[in-house]
Amino acid sequence: MGMTITEKILCRHTDLNEVHPGMLINAKVDIALGNDVTAPLAIDEFRKAGGKQVFDRDKVVLIPDHFTPNKDISSAAQCKIMRDFAREQEITHYYEVGEVGVEHALLPEKGIVLPGDLVIGADSHTCTYGALGAFATGVGSTDLAAAMLTGEVWFKVPETIKFVLSGKLNPWVSGKDLILYIIGKIGVDGALYKAMEFTGETIAILTMADRFSIANMAIEAGGKNGIFAPDEVTEAYVKPRAKRPYTYYTSDPDAVYAQEMEIDVGGIEPQVAFPHLPSNTRGISEVGNVPLDQVVIGSCTNGRIEDLRAAAAVLKGRQADPRVRLIVIPATQEIYRTAMKEGLFDIFLDAHAAISTPTCGPCLGGHMGILAAGERSLATTNRNFVGRMGHPRSEVYLSNPVVAAASAVLGRIAGPDELT
Amino acid sequence: MGMTITEKILCRHTDLNEVHPGMLINAKVDIALGNDVTAPLAIDEFRKAGGKQVFDRDKVVLIPDHFTPNKDISSAAQCKIMRDFAREQEITHYYEVGEVGVEHALLPEKGIVLPGDLVIGADSHTCTYGALGAFATGVGSTDLAAAMLTGEVWFKVPETIKFVLSGKLNPWVSGKDLILYIIGKIGVDGALYKAMEFTGETIAILTMADRFSIANMAIEAGGKNGIFAPDEVTEAYVKPRAKRPYTYYTSDPDAVYAQEMEIDVGGIEPQVAFPHLPSNTRGISEVGNVPLDQVVIGSCTNGRIEDLRAAAAVLKGRQADPRVRLIVIPATQEIYRTAMKEGLFDIFLDAHAAISTPTCGPCLGGHMGILAAGERSLATTNRNFVGRMGHPRSEVYLSNPVVAAASAVLGRIAGPDELT
Repeated sequence: MGMTITEKILCRHTDLNEVHPGMLINAKVDIALGNDVTAPLAIDEFRKAGGKQVFDRDKVVLIPDHFTPNKDISSAAQCKIMRDFAREQEITHYYEVGEVGVEHALLPEKGIVLPGDLVIGADSHTCTYGALGAFATGVGSTDLAAAMLTGEVWFKVPETIKFVLSGKLNPWVSGKDLILYIIGKIGVDGALYKAMEFTGETIAILTMADRFSIANMAIEAGGKNGIFAPDEVTEAYVKPRAKRPYTYYTSDPDAVYAQEMEIDVGGIEPQVAFPHLPSNTRGISEVGNVPLDQVVIGSCTNGRIEDLRAAAAVLKGRQADPRVRLIVIPATQEIYRTAMKEGLFDIFLDAHAAISTPTCGPCLGGHMGILAAGERSLATTNRNFVGRMGHPRSEVYLSNPVVAAASAVLGRIAGPDELT
Repeated sequence: MGMTITEKILCRHTDLNEVHPGMLINAKVDIALGNDVTAPLAIDEFRKAGGKQVFDRDKVVLIPDHFTPNKDISSAAQCKIMRDFAREQEITHYYEVGEVGVEHALLPEKGIVLPGDLVIGADSHTCTYGALGAFATGVGSTDLAAAMLTGEVWFKVPETIKFVLSGKLNPWVSGKDLILYIIGKIGVDGALYKAMEFTGETIAILTMADRFSIANMAIEAGGKNGIFAPDEVTEAYVKPRAKRPYTYYTSDPDAVYAQEMEIDVGGIEPQVAFPHLPSNTRGISEVGNVPLDQVVIGSCTNGRIEDLRAAAAVLKGRQADPRVRLIVIPATQEIYRTAMKEGLFDIFLDAHAAISTPTCGPCLGGHMGILAAGERSLATTNRNFVGRMGHPRSEVYLSNPVVAAASAVLGRIAGPDELT
């Protein structure tokens, strides 16, 4: 019996010849990731379990990106625990403030995660790397601790939902809109503990940035992972970055799916997720009048150079509404530098944007743009739960970068077509 | 009897013909400044006193710079109080995130404070504007509230200490070093409630940036204000920025001083203030081995373009020690843009610096680089009290920007001469 790409990758990381949904397997991990929020807990568990040395210092990746540069004493203490551990263990992929970026943008950029890898990360958006044709999923800090120690982790092999995308993208529609649309259709538990495999003719025209955005938000539908079979677009991205061998897996023709869902992307307009769920989506034409206090362009979902270019194209020659705080957060130092070199920063500054050093920042209510009671932000981030960006009585709306840019200018949620 | 420059400016803001030290006077204010920490308290007092309208919407200046972009919910609430008030009162000089900068760099840059002005600010480093030949001093939020309502404030006219600076500056010595040296000599209460008037042949060779750094730290010696008589350097700075008339005052030849202090600047090397007082200074040659965890270049003391240029000249082609987090914070958006345009950001990024959007940030333990227990930072900021930048068991050392840059590279406090 054939296997899906997800099943194949899992299988190849065990001693088994084949795996099927529902099987409990013990798999070898290629990358085990922690950040300044989750790694300190994992390190504590690692010590309690008698851990002296990580299983492979090249494969444990530690990234201080959530509350950095440190926002307060407790976040500084968290970072210090991780930093001290990284030095003690001589972790290869530890990146300090000044070199670091948002983990899920940084790891692909540096070629740390590659196609065919099995990646676990103590961060729910670890699923981002599925865009590369890797199996990647978020785990708890205790699972991370076990993986750091043994190099292995237990999984129940997930069933797979196959999404078949056809048609061409409408203007201003990006990967972010496709995944918001899908989540809107199936709900925040629509893919609970399932692999979300994205296929169909439309995939070929999606950039890696689009694919990262889509895979990134698989978890917002409850997915165990999101995944794309590698193609030429993947190859063009991976080849210059890879420093070790990698493998392209694809689903067998006779692979078994729990469900298949066909989506004509030609029917999708830019999407906005209303409070307080990513599934609470509307097309931009149905948004109505939603005045804003803040617009955030950044995060592991949409802080890539393509996102900044798209936002800048809309912002060029325009200014944010005086009532809107516009905050732009390049996801990594490389993106920061590239955006600067390309003149995007000039556009952002002319638009009265604050440009932040890379950080997860406001996405998770960390810092760098937290909302007061009654305030409303549109963000290119991935979650709009109650209080996600600040006060429980604040509101977060999710969109793609061009809608975010246009909305900053107009002071209310709107698509670029409304700009004169 | 003659008057000092400080006495003259105070006098001209009253109906009196002359004032003398010790007199209690009621003076008109040209600028009344508040920030996101202090203005909310002042606004509350303003309301309690029955205030409906500020005395002059052009003269009340409100700057959200301390915890912005908002670091947390409570700072967001503080900013919202100030923002709502600024909108209600149609305050001319309110600057939002994306346009704002560190208040004491922003106000001179935008020509809001001019020579001869009487300025009060609910921030201790309001004394910075003395560099322009203005009388400027920090007050409490209640005093600010009264000034916002009435346009007037009570003062006891301070005595003046005259500092007579002669000689040429040694290499790597800047205004920051001169003021650190002076504070080291006279102590943190050496000028308690006194005007610090900086005079002498050396003044002519000091840039405005040097003068701002010196006046900025007058409060660290307990001074009521620090002040320089305007000259051609002042004029070159002020003329392109002023949008209203201004007046140059100078001390009368027969003005009376409480004390005079002569300083040969040729005997001064770069200074470092050790924990936990700005007066705990040593020459760079006497620092010994002080390893660092963090270096901060920024603040109202040393976040100006001249400071960034000086730091970049030292950092060019070099990298921060991997154990040091280097954080560069341009003090205003204009400085940010200029530094970027001049290629300084390339140098900072090559050096593995995190470049922040303008904010007071870590200087006051706000955000953007807070220290954990046991950590040590060198900073171009103005205070190194216990816990100033984070945990009570962290340490802050103060220096000029070139020493900060060299120290980032070497991983310990050192002057640029130690770089090979």
